[in-house]
Amino acid sequence: MHTDPTGARRGKLTTPHGVIETPVFMPVGTAATVKALTQDALEELGAGIILANTYHLYLRPGHELIRKLGGLHAFMAWRKAILTDSGGYQVFSLSELRKVTDEGVRFRSHLNGSEHLLTPEKAAEIQLALGSDIAMVLDECIETPAPRNVAEAAVRRTTEWASRARKFFLQGAQRNGDPAQWQFGIVQGATFADLRRESARQLLEFDFPGYAVGGLAVGEPHELTCEMAAEVTSLLPEERPRYLMGVGRPEQLADYIARGIDMMDCVLPTRAARHACLYTSEGRVLIKNARYIEDQRPIDPNCGCSVCKRYTRAYLRHLFAAGEITAAILATHHNVRFYLDIMGQIREAMTFGHLANFALELRARYAAGPA
Amino acid sequence: MHTDPTGARRGKLTTPHGVIETPVFMPVGTAATVKALTQDALEELGAGIILANTYHLYLRPGHELIRKLGGLHAFMAWRKAILTDSGGYQVFSLSELRKVTDEGVRFRSHLNGSEHLLTPEKAAEIQLALGSDIAMVLDECIETPAPRNVAEAAVRRTTEWASRARKFFLQGAQRNGDPAQWQFGIVQGATFADLRRESARQLLEFDFPGYAVGGLAVGEPHELTCEMAAEVTSLLPEERPRYLMGVGRPEQLADYIARGIDMMDCVLPTRAARHACLYTSEGRVLIKNARYIEDQRPIDPNCGCSVCKRYTRAYLRHLFAAGEITAAILATHHNVRFYLDIMGQIREAMTFGHLANFALELRARYAAGPA
Repeated sequence: MHTDPTGARRGKLTTPHGVIETPVFMPVGTAATVKALTQDALEELGAGIILANTYHLYLRPGHELIRKLGGLHAFMAWRKAILTDSGGYQVFSLSELRKVTDEGVRFRSHLNGSEHLLTPEKAAEIQLALGSDIAMVLDECIETPAPRNVAEAAVRRTTEWASRARKFFLQGAQRNGDPAQWQFGIVQGATFADLRRESARQLLEFDFPGYAVGGLAVGEPHELTCEMAAEVTSLLPEERPRYLMGVGRPEQLADYIARGIDMMDCVLPTRAARHACLYTSEGRVLIKNARYIEDQRPIDPNCGCSVCKRYTRAYLRHLFAAGEITAAILATHHNVRFYLDIMGQIREAMTFGHLANFALELRARYAAGPA
Repeated sequence: MHTDPTGARRGKLTTPHGVIETPVFMPVGTAATVKALTQDALEELGAGIILANTYHLYLRPGHELIRKLGGLHAFMAWRKAILTDSGGYQVFSLSELRKVTDEGVRFRSHLNGSEHLLTPEKAAEIQLALGSDIAMVLDECIETPAPRNVAEAAVRRTTEWASRARKFFLQGAQRNGDPAQWQFGIVQGATFADLRRESARQLLEFDFPGYAVGGLAVGEPHELTCEMAAEVTSLLPEERPRYLMGVGRPEQLADYIARGIDMMDCVLPTRAARHACLYTSEGRVLIKNARYIEDQRPIDPNCGCSVCKRYTRAYLRHLFAAGEITAAILATHHNVRFYLDIMGQIREAMTFGHLANFALELRARYAAGPA
């Protein structure tokens, strides 16, 4: 492990599906596909780990089917690493009629209204069936800003759930004969520094091989997100990976890494791509804008991706104007490459102890304008 | 040129953008993109020529823009050959309030209702601006079955338009200094053999470098399509390419080729793909069908495409069920490969004089079931 003056760390995560250089950004492959990218394209882009959503895969096609077909790697023909979330976040954000009790979360599917109960054990069971390299515990996600008593209760429940999930997962992993599958704990505590610390301390008792920081970047100021992340990482064992869930914007990535974060995921590069927002080394390009009608430059003259090597902004703009599927393919390809490139640049900056400067540079480029 | 006992011909079409083995199938790239395929993918698939739609490109992004950006090849970053249609067929099938006079076709855009006049000269001018390797004359498309007097009038007008289009195109091509761009005539005549022959004879006077058979495969019985194609090709000069527009189903391709056809295009492989209909060496696979839920075989065990090498039917089915863009990408890739493979097999069968047998085999595999 190599550390930067900021406290940022470079390291390697060794999974059954490859060694991953950290800090790492994980493209989101919600329903066992990164929208608009083939697995060949992901390999070409150099993605070493992707995230898949347990909630979506549980509802469709179902984890038992995926288990039967050899697990998620075999199902989607992806040879590199996969992290699955617990399903909790989607239950809280997508499903209807959710009801949280100590037992778990009862909810109705957003697809067909069918009723389900997601417990810490169930979330672990699903992920054992999926066979992801990294599974996440079920945590209680609360709306923010949250009153202190609500945040306290969520921390308490998250710890209880983590305890049950850990026990269930370790037994299940042993049965699977696959101790290489990891399970990470998730630190909650909303925006209360002491609750964050308390949550972290409680989870440390379960000896997770990695820890996530959950419930952040959900509307609070960026500085507060960074502060909470720093509170948590300062307590976590140095040799274990730390994952900040659901972040972030390009100009924020270095800030999180400077707080000791190793792993991140976000739908932003892929979702923005489908909405014609392209990231470049000179800032955002909203490619539907009329100013690009005759623009014969590549999306990003400084990008080496196969899209920038071949196509012009004028062509991309036309594809979006015409509502062509190819627009989503090309834009997603470029944006994912952009995020992976930023991470590569961050890792390099860290090698030379220049992360703080690079973070400033990123902010200058992207902090203005839409996400 | 190599001929089969059926009268089918193998040949080579030398364009400014590569040499194409005929008979050839041209994937349809309506709006300067083959829907859901990148140009890299088209190259991987070995497509040597694609078709683009003049009507769509004229309306959006506009032929003057494409001219300014260096022509269609540069605009869409496609280095191989392109054939553009005249726009007539889409005017007749997509636009509103169309009115045909000797001058041309007046119509309203299906996009925004704006009014336009497509004349033989205009269709040629647009295609000169696009710089396709092969341009088509504007012909009058009529509904079939057509009364004889309507078909007669359409033949007469098609010839008059061809005369004007030829003159305009040759002058324009000379101005462009690009005599390598070809313009093909289009034989009309509905399902009247004598009108087809008459139309062909009249067009021969304009000495087109290639001839198309238009207005077929629009609902009439397949045998009649074949008969009309044969009537026309029997009159055409042997050394010039013949193109049957808008065909066809996999089981029909060899039949047309047996009537002396060299070039074909059809939206079927790409459109069917987006509707979850996959072609295989064992017939059609309607991949959304529940029977494929656990099917771990590739789409087609006998296919060597990158999709069949990597993914299972179960995965494809899941992607379609989830409405994922990746479903369209993978399915289109496979179906285009399937069509190009069929053409390769047809060319090989011809080398050995076995086309008639191969045509029977194709019919046995695909004639049942939906398109």
